[in-house]
Amino acid sequence: MATIKELSKNKPWINWVLFFGTVIIVFLLGLFAASIVERRSEAQLYFQMTKPIPEYEPRNEVWGQNFPRQYESYRRTLDTTFESKYYGSVMIDYLEKYPELVIMWAGYAFARDYSQGRGHYYSVTDVHNTLRTVQSQPATCWTCKSTDVPRVMDEIGVREFYSRSWRDLGSEIVNPIGCQDCHDPETMNLRITRPALAEAFERRGENIEHATHQEMRSLVCAQCHVEYYFRGEDNYLVFPWDEGFSADDMERFFDNYEFTDWVHGLSRAPMLAAQHPDYELYKTGIHAQRGVSCADCHMPYKREGGLKFTDHHLQSPLNNIEGSCQVCHRESEETLRQNVYDRQNKVSELRGIAEKHLARIHLEAKVAWDAGAKEEEMEEVLQLIRHSQWRWDWVAAANGMGIHSPNESLRVLATSIDKAQEARVLLSRVLSKYNVPQPVELPDYSTKEKAQELLGLNMEEIRQQKEEFLNTVVPKWLEEARIREDLYHHPQD
Amino acid sequence: MATIKELSKNKPWINWVLFFGTVIIVFLLGLFAASIVERRSEAQLYFQMTKPIPEYEPRNEVWGQNFPRQYESYRRTLDTTFESKYYGSVMIDYLEKYPELVIMWAGYAFARDYSQGRGHYYSVTDVHNTLRTVQSQPATCWTCKSTDVPRVMDEIGVREFYSRSWRDLGSEIVNPIGCQDCHDPETMNLRITRPALAEAFERRGENIEHATHQEMRSLVCAQCHVEYYFRGEDNYLVFPWDEGFSADDMERFFDNYEFTDWVHGLSRAPMLAAQHPDYELYKTGIHAQRGVSCADCHMPYKREGGLKFTDHHLQSPLNNIEGSCQVCHRESEETLRQNVYDRQNKVSELRGIAEKHLARIHLEAKVAWDAGAKEEEMEEVLQLIRHSQWRWDWVAAANGMGIHSPNESLRVLATSIDKAQEARVLLSRVLSKYNVPQPVELPDYSTKEKAQELLGLNMEEIRQQKEEFLNTVVPKWLEEARIREDLYHHPQD
Repeated sequence: MATIKELSKNKPWINWVLFFGTVIIVFLLGLFAASIVERRSEAQLYFQMTKPIPEYEPRNEVWGQNFPRQYESYRRTLDTTFESKYYGSVMIDYLEKYPELVIMWAGYAFARDYSQGRGHYYSVTDVHNTLRTVQSQPATCWTCKSTDVPRVMDEIGVREFYSRSWRDLGSEIVNPIGCQDCHDPETMNLRITRPALAEAFERRGENIEHATHQEMRSLVCAQCHVEYYFRGEDNYLVFPWDEGFSADDMERFFDNYEFTDWVHGLSRAPMLAAQHPDYELYKTGIHAQRGVSCADCHMPYKREGGLKFTDHHLQSPLNNIEGSCQVCHRESEETLRQNVYDRQNKVSELRGIAEKHLARIHLEAKVAWDAGAKEEEMEEVLQLIRHSQWRWDWVAAANGMGIHSPNESLRVLATSIDKAQEARVLLSRVLSKYNVPQPVELPDYSTKEKAQELLGLNMEEIRQQKEEFLNTVVPKWLEEARIREDLYHHPQD
Repeated sequence: MATIKELSKNKPWINWVLFFGTVIIVFLLGLFAASIVERRSEAQLYFQMTKPIPEYEPRNEVWGQNFPRQYESYRRTLDTTFESKYYGSVMIDYLEKYPELVIMWAGYAFARDYSQGRGHYYSVTDVHNTLRTVQSQPATCWTCKSTDVPRVMDEIGVREFYSRSWRDLGSEIVNPIGCQDCHDPETMNLRITRPALAEAFERRGENIEHATHQEMRSLVCAQCHVEYYFRGEDNYLVFPWDEGFSADDMERFFDNYEFTDWVHGLSRAPMLAAQHPDYELYKTGIHAQRGVSCADCHMPYKREGGLKFTDHHLQSPLNNIEGSCQVCHRESEETLRQNVYDRQNKVSELRGIAEKHLARIHLEAKVAWDAGAKEEEMEEVLQLIRHSQWRWDWVAAANGMGIHSPNESLRVLATSIDKAQEARVLLSRVLSKYNVPQPVELPDYSTKEKAQELLGLNMEEIRQQKEEFLNTVVPKWLEEARIREDLYHHPQD
């Protein structure tokens, strides 16, 4: 083969080809290097705040001026098309879908209204709208709903905050869950803004300040996505974690403390209600055990141009399988989705069995009372009902139909079913004693309306009260908030 | 820098260094190449049979002459030290550990004796030894126990085989489960030797001949590790897969067919017994769904020198986490073992609840019969008992305490608990009707001995019969077999 030297002797133009070829390659390399430099500076810009954010700034749009990508993705929690596409409605009315729930919550505000939660963007609006807030509730109910909470807690003190009424603070709490709930406005580091989580850690002999960044990517969520209760007359918010995180541990905790959320309107059982113990359930699951945080699946990293940032569009990972699941799992979207559904279907099956029994036993217990049953004859039955419904609720109230830990969900639901049925065995003896014919003839609770009527709920009146509240009180709150926010944020004007 | 040319001008010895250096490197390369060639020829030897194996050769040691590595690893199923190390005894006596089982199996041979299975090597010995075979059983019981089965089926026909009695074929069936059960003696390909599996496929409109090699790595196990029953007077072995593979599907199948394994000795319920539906349970689990076969975990590949071969030491993957689990899972042995135990503990918890209720309801039902309960009053109760115990058994009889599919195991056990408790609700009404004081006072069945006595089992007599059988009949069988095997295998001598 001829060398280049020999070639250039015979064909002198070959030198020019080499020369210009080199020029072109070097030029392209230059372009490439420029692109790299540009991306780097873009990534640095990422953390150049155009204007500093004050401590306790509740307005997400103000944070958004500095962090447009995060803010824009957060704003997408406005979008509920996924839910409607897959589940047929933007907010599923659970009471309509499962009328047993109305019976199970007799005497409790949830019997009026219980619909699917919407995105964080709606946290304040939805709590204005729900029929559960027709009567005022403790201000403690606001704790998880708004970026205004840390500000007001700072102004009036934590205990004072909890001891106020929900309506008292209506004009203060207007900005939905957002940036300030999880981020330090100066460093953007994750931080805990709600005292209950830090206090629960402290009682367990742990210091939340020592949490790693990866742990914080779950703990900021655990400020709210947990089981909690209101302690004492000032409704102090407490996480029942002192004995452990499982349904069994918390049940023991509440029993020892003789805590009761409400007395059931039919069975008179001393009930416990669970509040979405997502974090606790997740901790028993394989994802937590493998070090996967909430944010890894619900806020996976996203790329835009040269930037990699955390997607703040909090949503079901099933909406974004390629961005969340497939980072680790190499199966197809279809397979992964089916794997989730398979597990959820099993959990749903057991939930349905528990609900059927629980609704029934509350009504049967009422029949026993009406027939003359005595306190001491009913005591064990009522305790079983309390425990059964608690265990059902512990799984049912958590988001994701048990997918955060299918095994533990199934185990807990199985014990719920067992206890409801045990209550029915014992109650059958009481009913026999008072000569009640069995099976007990039960009233019709096959629809939400029938079940609510059965409880004597005047839903027409409740809805009217709500409408009036939304037309008169809420606009006033929002107007007051507007004026306050103008004053608060621009004191120099 | 000086070139070699320049160096060799100044220091002529440098040429010798290069020369000898090259010689040494070439020599080492030669050694390496020789090693590769040797390993290759060793790998080829792997499939050079020293002498051909006749069709229906039942003796594993004859196969072992050609395949020493596979045979030696198979021989390790003799070793039960792992079980004893982890579980305290070589064969757990389940009746001693869970005396409820004696009550649950009243009227069935399992109430006499039910211990942990040992390795395949003991398959014939253990079936000689168990107290369940004091009375003769159908010859169908031999189907899964020995490499002699395909030979005898070929000689006398499949239907004739099933219709014989267990004792009739005692001298024919002497070699334990082994090579011939799964391998073609000519090609060593995996093959199906038991007709029931192929027949079940056919009834489902599938052809087992079309199974892939990877599917065969589970299907050879599925010849025996499945649910089956004996159909008709000739005890024809059938897999109840016509409606599907789940506990619910098989329950429906048996109900439609009005099949009953035995009538319960206390409750008179028409019972179903499950036979280790390992394959069916595994099919619902994530490992099967990801294409992992039985052999992948229970017979992982192993290296000896240049050879990679399938480890025929069938055992729990927990004995060999590095060889089985860690091929895919990157967690530590300790973590993986704990993950298994966590799941098994949940399954075990639900099993225990189901067993407690089932033992109780059988005894309570007997009390109801004794008090004068009528057939039509008991019918629904007995059907619930049948279904509850079937579902319990479907999980409990399968190996691995539910680990082949924890979610499905928990779901099925939950429905077992639900049905046992529903039976107790209905029975409570019957008991009340006949004025039986409740809770029913139950006899003591807290130990195996007490429970067996309660059933009127004369264990002393049964044990004596067994001893006589082992001292007189079995030695005769083995002697006959020795003579037959000599004749059969060396007809030319």
